[in-house]
Formats: sequence, structure tokens, C-alpha cells
Amino acid sequence: MEQRLSFVTLAVRDVDRSRSFYVDALGWSPELDVPGEVLMFMAGEHLVLSLWDLAQFEVELGGPALEGDGVVPVTLSHNVATSAEVREVLELARSAGAQVWGPVEREWGGFTGYFADPDGFRWEVAWNPGPIGLRAVPDTDVDAHP
Amino acid sequence: MEQRLSFVTLAVRDVDRSRSFYVDALGWSPELDVPGEVLMFMAGEHLVLSLWDLAQFEVELGGPALEGDGVVPVTLSHNVATSAEVREVLELARSAGAQVWGPVEREWGGFTGYFADPDGFRWEVAWNPGPIGLRAVPDTDVDAHP
Repeated sequence: MEQRLSFVTLAVRDVDRSRSFYVDALGWSPELDVPGEVLMFMAGEHLVLSLWDLAQFEVELGGPALEGDGVVPVTLSHNVATSAEVREVLELARSAGAQVWGPVEREWGGFTGYFADPDGFRWEVAWNPGPIGLRAVPDTDVDAHP
Repeated sequence: MEQRLSFVTLAVRDVDRSRSFYVDALGWSPELDVPGEVLMFMAGEHLVLSLWDLAQFEVELGGPALEGDGVVPVTLSHNVATSAEVREVLELARSAGAQVWGPVEREWGGFTGYFADPDGFRWEVAWNPGPIGLRAVPDTDVDAHP
């Protein structure tokens, strides 16, 4: 099995609400938009982020999705080149109505915070100056200091 | 906010068990391996898949993760160029002890199935000959017929 991730699909309760957040507030441009069904975004060179209607997701996956008060055990990270950008993206999410945590300096040397999308999926916004963090940010110089 | 996904992090109950599955059985090579803590894989040009100890995940995220019998409302897809490869990857996962569903022909024209990793995270293995499917498979010609 090649070491590749092609699509990340999030099951969402209201595709219109997701569009308002990702397109209208965060400024993303969908590659595919089927109202009430699915919204797909290119999120990397060969990577698609798909927001799919929960009811259809449950039919294809063959059962109800987990629900409750806990955190979904998956996070998505958006890595940036400077700590200033971490603050900017988190403020943008906050202005779109998202709950925001941090940012804080992490023990491992990074500076990160989180926001929740309308379904509660957690996005991390990260400045990560380590070797793997550098590989995650395309075509840019990552600041050496926060 | 740029339209980019940099890291996908899965909270896992046993990093050693995850290593056995992803490294020993599926054949992936970790970029970072800290036993008991985290395992990171390059999964695209600027994309990292991280398997992180659940207890540490819950501390950083500030609460318990969802649990129960339902399906995690997120899927990861591995897209391939032929339907034969869909069958091969699913058989590899099955031989590694994973539960497998499908593959089946989908209404939208693709041929896909799923397997569950040791924590129950669902991976879709997909042959998708549509325009977005083509963008998800690097440097290869996708078959026109399944």
C-alpha cells in the first residue's frame, strides 16, 4: 500500500452551514458543490477535503456515527510559517463564530491553537519549526522564532 | 486562511499496535517514531499523518474523546489508479487482521471499499475515475473502466 492520503471526509450535519463557514467566512473555494450533499475542496496537490452529508455517510458506512459530548478523536492541522499567522487564522475563525483555544507555546517548541468548525471538528493552527513541521508548509521559509 | 491541510492526527489507544499495522503489515515508513507517544508518516508532498497517544491527545484537546459503538464521523481515502489495486489493498488490510467492507461499484461511478485500522478508523480504498478522483492520484493514468 503506497504511503498516500488522498481524501479526508468529514460527516457534517448541514452542508449549507459548512459552506457558510468554510467558503464565506474562511474564504475557501470549493472544487465541487452539490447543495445538501457534499462540498469538496482541494487541500493539497493531490489531496481533497470533503464535507459530506451525515445521513448519506451513515448509509454508506453502514451504521450510525459516534455522537456525544467528547472530542472527535481526529484533528486537522493547518500549518503556517509564522506565529503571527497562527494568531491571524485563529482570529478569522473566531470572527466566523468558531470557538477558539489558545494559541499557546508547546513543550515541543511550536506555537499552536485550535478552532472548532460548525460540527465541532477541531482544526489546529500551527507554527512548527521542527523538521516535520517544515515539510508541511509549502514553498515558504518558516520563521525560526515565534 | 489558505486552502491547505498539513497534518491529520488520529488519537490511538496503543501506538505499538498502530505501528504493527501501518508499518509491519501495510509497509509504511515512519518519519518520526517515539514509542508510546507518536508515529508520523509523510502521506503527501506537504502532508503528515500522525498517530498520537490518546491520553496525550485528550490532555491537549482539553477533554475526553468521543467513544462508543458508532463510526468515527471521518474517513480517510487512499485512491488508486485501477480497480485491481482496490482489491489488492483491501486484501492486504484483511491479511493484516482488519475488518473489510466491499469493494462495490458506487452510484457515482467509482469502485470502493473500506477497511478499519486497529482503532476503528475507516480507510476507504477508491478507484475514482471522475475529475476530482483524477486529481487525487499522483503521476499516473487512472483506468477509464473498473
